[in-house]
Amino acid sequence: MKFLRIYLGEGDHCDGTPVYKHIVKLCYDHGIKGVTVLKGIMGFGEKHHVHRVDFFTLSEDLPIVVEIVDSSDKIEKIIEEVKKCNFDGLVVYWDVESIRIEKNK
Amino acid sequence: MKFLRIYLGEGDHCDGTPVYKHIVKLCYDHGIKGVTVLKGIMGFGEKHHVHRVDFFTLSEDLPIVVEIVDSSDKIEKIIEEVKKCNFDGLVVYWDVESIRIEKNK
Amino acid sequence: MKFLRIYLGEGDHCDGTPVYKHIVKLCYDHGIKGVTVLKGIMGFGEKHHVHRVDFFTLSEDLPIVVEIVDSSDKIEKIIEEVKKCNFDGLVVYWDVESIRIEKNK
Repeated sequence: MKFLRIYLGEGDHCDGTPVYKHIVKLCYDHGIKGVTVLKGIMGFGEKHHVHRVDFFTLSEDLPIVVEIVDSSDKIEKIIEEVKKCNFDGLVVYWDVESIRIEKNK
Repeated sequence: MKFLRIYLGEGDHCDGTPVYKHIVKLCYDHGIKGVTVLKGIMGFGEKHHVHRVDFFTLSEDLPIVVEIVDSSDKIEKIIEEVKKCNFDGLVVYWDVESIRIEKNK
Repeated sequence: MKFLRIYLGEGDHCDGTPVYKHIVKLCYDHGIKGVTVLKGIMGFGEKHHVHRVDFFTLSEDLPIVVEIVDSSDKIEKIIEEVKKCNFDGLVVYWDVESIRIEKNK
């Protein structure tokens, strides 16, 4: 299994929708088993180096992390789809072991 | 060292206690060195595919991630204990390097 | 690329500044491409075993995670700088693949 993390800003939009919501919908439509969206309290990305004025005003556009765990081929598919969105972001991924826990009926 | 992440829902309970609090207690009782609980702002898991009605009402039961870093044998022990809780979740783990930072006395 | 995560407490300070803000500034000054700070809702660290009184009052000093993705040499440099701060924390890191996503001009 692969662990995928996509970094973006809360204010990034794609066709009028926040990019992170767009990605959650994308994952849902592609049958990804689970997605988690985390919101940071502070951060900066590559492009913010240029735009920021005062160091601690960086937090206006808070960082968002979208996390996905699935098979390599599903993750590759999602990366291809995410690349089509028009935003500045970072995608990282690595191998993990996974165990599903199921509730007794 | 192993990095362990457990995904579950904020509303999942185990013996009347939220599952994430149960796991933190479990880790504490097993002498795990550190635990961090993160709460997502959106997400879905495998079982939510069936239960949800409208796509963006998914966020009612917010995703929780419990993170633990410890030795392989401690992590294995925790996974065995977590499996005994009755909830739908996902466990992922991978190898990491680690360095402890200590405050001067 | 390396993925670096630094665990600390919200209340940890270094020269009068919260440690996590100090680290963000440090990363910025060292030309790190991106940093994300996440705040947990619960947790404990090694030293809290000694200090805590009641189990569920642990959450007073909430856990903070600082995440950085960059080249091995940049990450090593940051770890060296972080070690100079006077706090109790944990640093973990591992290898990842990464892809930068760029907005069309």
